[in-house]
Amino acid sequence: MEEITVDVAIIGSGTAGLNAMGQVRRARKSFVLINGGEAGTTCARVGCMPSKVLIQVAEDFHRKSLFSRCGIEGGDGLSVDRPEVMEYVQHIRDNFVDRVLSNSTDHLGDEFIEDYARFVEPTLLAVGDKRIRATGVVIATGSTPIVPDAWRVFGDRVITTDEFFELEDLPDSMAVIGLGVIGLELGQSLNRLGVKVTGIDLAANIGGLSDPVVARHALDIMSNEFPIWLGEAAELSETDDGRIRVRAGDNEVVVDKVLAAMGRRPNVDHLNLEALGVEVDAKGVPLHSQATCQVGDLPVFLAGDVNGHRPILHEAGDDGKIAGYNAAHPEAVTAFRRKPWIGITFCDPNIITVGQTHGHIDLESAVIGEMPVAPVGRALIMGKNKGMIRLYADKASGRFLGAEMIAPAGEHLAHLLVWAIQNEMTVGEMLRMPFYHPVMEEAVQAALNNLYAEVDTKNPGPITELATV
Amino acid sequence: MEEITVDVAIIGSGTAGLNAMGQVRRARKSFVLINGGEAGTTCARVGCMPSKVLIQVAEDFHRKSLFSRCGIEGGDGLSVDRPEVMEYVQHIRDNFVDRVLSNSTDHLGDEFIEDYARFVEPTLLAVGDKRIRATGVVIATGSTPIVPDAWRVFGDRVITTDEFFELEDLPDSMAVIGLGVIGLELGQSLNRLGVKVTGIDLAANIGGLSDPVVARHALDIMSNEFPIWLGEAAELSETDDGRIRVRAGDNEVVVDKVLAAMGRRPNVDHLNLEALGVEVDAKGVPLHSQATCQVGDLPVFLAGDVNGHRPILHEAGDDGKIAGYNAAHPEAVTAFRRKPWIGITFCDPNIITVGQTHGHIDLESAVIGEMPVAPVGRALIMGKNKGMIRLYADKASGRFLGAEMIAPAGEHLAHLLVWAIQNEMTVGEMLRMPFYHPVMEEAVQAALNNLYAEVDTKNPGPITELATV
Repeated sequence: MEEITVDVAIIGSGTAGLNAMGQVRRARKSFVLINGGEAGTTCARVGCMPSKVLIQVAEDFHRKSLFSRCGIEGGDGLSVDRPEVMEYVQHIRDNFVDRVLSNSTDHLGDEFIEDYARFVEPTLLAVGDKRIRATGVVIATGSTPIVPDAWRVFGDRVITTDEFFELEDLPDSMAVIGLGVIGLELGQSLNRLGVKVTGIDLAANIGGLSDPVVARHALDIMSNEFPIWLGEAAELSETDDGRIRVRAGDNEVVVDKVLAAMGRRPNVDHLNLEALGVEVDAKGVPLHSQATCQVGDLPVFLAGDVNGHRPILHEAGDDGKIAGYNAAHPEAVTAFRRKPWIGITFCDPNIITVGQTHGHIDLESAVIGEMPVAPVGRALIMGKNKGMIRLYADKASGRFLGAEMIAPAGEHLAHLLVWAIQNEMTVGEMLRMPFYHPVMEEAVQAALNNLYAEVDTKNPGPITELATV
Repeated sequence: MEEITVDVAIIGSGTAGLNAMGQVRRARKSFVLINGGEAGTTCARVGCMPSKVLIQVAEDFHRKSLFSRCGIEGGDGLSVDRPEVMEYVQHIRDNFVDRVLSNSTDHLGDEFIEDYARFVEPTLLAVGDKRIRATGVVIATGSTPIVPDAWRVFGDRVITTDEFFELEDLPDSMAVIGLGVIGLELGQSLNRLGVKVTGIDLAANIGGLSDPVVARHALDIMSNEFPIWLGEAAELSETDDGRIRVRAGDNEVVVDKVLAAMGRRPNVDHLNLEALGVEVDAKGVPLHSQATCQVGDLPVFLAGDVNGHRPILHEAGDDGKIAGYNAAHPEAVTAFRRKPWIGITFCDPNIITVGQTHGHIDLESAVIGEMPVAPVGRALIMGKNKGMIRLYADKASGRFLGAEMIAPAGEHLAHLLVWAIQNEMTVGEMLRMPFYHPVMEEAVQAALNNLYAEVDTKNPGPITELATV
């Protein structure tokens, strides 16, 4: 059996794996990049990118509901050719996937191995008929959408994002089970494109929100577009005419297809992680440090969605860099500071969680400031005057801690807020920043003003919003 | 003649005057608020707000150009009812004006005087048949659109924003003279709504841009929508059929109306500023400090658009607060730090200037990083993949200085960048901030990466984008 010796073996050529490769190359170490299954990142193939395309088409189509009030005529004559929409989504998606591949694995020779890897020892991998001995190993195998085994019997009538973006047409009706990021983004878009959508989640809130006030606003806004059933598990059965009956509590609907959007599980099944000889968590993921990505004290590093922490691209990229760097320098493992949380659901309006969410703050020592979106001038102009912004701060120090919101342009407000958190700003300092007019950032300003009234640490000087020279 | 004695007299009830009033009230001083002419802020009546409404309608209508590529059918059947558009704009505008008034002057009794004020002495005003003696005075009289005297002969065929938002219908053709904020915002919107627009400016660049690369992109993008003539003064004459012939250099067009958008002049004519006995600048504005708003060493303070510095709402608000506070405490005038510059032209894509622009940076000590919008994933998805982002930093220290750009979502990117400037961040520190995916903020990240390569001061640690614990 052929045995190859390299400095670093990277398992998985998605975002985390590719970022790991970048660090290994920078360290001028030898490596192999091993990928079983489809190439291309989850993001580009079945995640962030194609979903944003569908959202954009759905949003453009949905704007017609505002046309008659403002002098645009003929909106009722607009319609959607659903196969054409899907073809367009696939076309753009293919471009993004090609771009990822041409920037990464397309130019690799023997360093790229398209096959599955299996641990024999912590630093010895079996890949097809080869063995690979590496000084450091990066596990970046990603994740797979969860589908309950009992639902497999329904075949292609129960799909996940792995299949969804391959559809040549959209069904007339769908149940979307799971109302996190994917369920809300696709559920709302499909409904806007004329698919009769029912949204179902076992949880009490949608969009991963923990703030009860924001969660209520989010539910009101989304329920206005399609029915949402919360708090009960979905049960599926087949109807006589071959469709799917979905029951949740007392509710029942018959649909053509079900989109299972109940989260993703780490791809660890084929890795034979037992060979690492370390403890694993309930999902089968080896215990590891987020600061170093290191598994126990092995020269093995876990990066990206497989680690189960933050399944978002920039965090997978950071994971990959950390794991790649440390795998290339396993003799002196370096710990890195991780970024504050930012989570964006690109539904309309956006659902945002930033920094410490309501579920994380200590309600004894923290205070809350809020601003409804309804009266915000620019939101009115956009015809998007629905939503709620809630901001959290430490009462004693005035330090800004985090936010939850459902708000138009929330994706941008989230960046402003998460940068403020990383810059360790107080509410008073944030109020001294420029806010232009008329922009959605003014809604954050209003919420900050309300929050400022609650904190003990105030700005010095006679005018709160201005610093003296 | 009745003489009233108050602590503070505020001339002008726009944004600056109302903010001044807020500070005077907080100081529990007596005051009068004097306003000649129409009540309501420039912003709400004829500025930011109604222009944003028109832009939103025009943008919604313009999106139809993207419909056929993505499966939305019937876009060709959309049309605009221009009188209905204007009625809608006026309706929303009236709401905003009512809101301003009901929050401010509607509840004032004798403290609100609707008349013009004239200085008799620095602290003595004549208002109608009254005299007002004040310990401190705030001048917040705003500004008026410039129309060359020679053009008055054309009557209502040459209009400014003062008249534009009152139109009951839009003409079939217009020349927009002056391509700053107002000219670009209204010119592009009118053209998108079916008015045949010609844009003309004496300057070499549009949108107040000083960066030649960004200016070229902006001109290319805007010229793609309507003809733009730069570098020549416009000359107007009447045609035989009562329309307006506009000539600029070798170019010539005949239009129904002309929108004069050539800037605004301070409202100082009726104030009898000679009574202050201080030096004035070329526009007739008394010399004053921006940090205190004080005129010379008089207890007289200048605030808002009348000062000729930064005719934008949040700066007028800051002016008003500073002037109001100092007028209420003229015995100990306080100097305040002013915010870094942020300028947004809400055309599509947005044109942005932030902090030190290309015209301000020292090209010897500064470096530039750029990112074209064309390849940015989210921009492609939005169908807005045109534009250019240019960022400036101090080479030695790596300190981020400013930016110019034409980019989608530029209004939001501008906030992120201006906050970074006020926080005195380096390029390296900015690169360590979270950037989600796929968002337009990633275009800023790419430009920062390019800029980072040019600066001497790099982040410590083995991975540039990550801080060690």
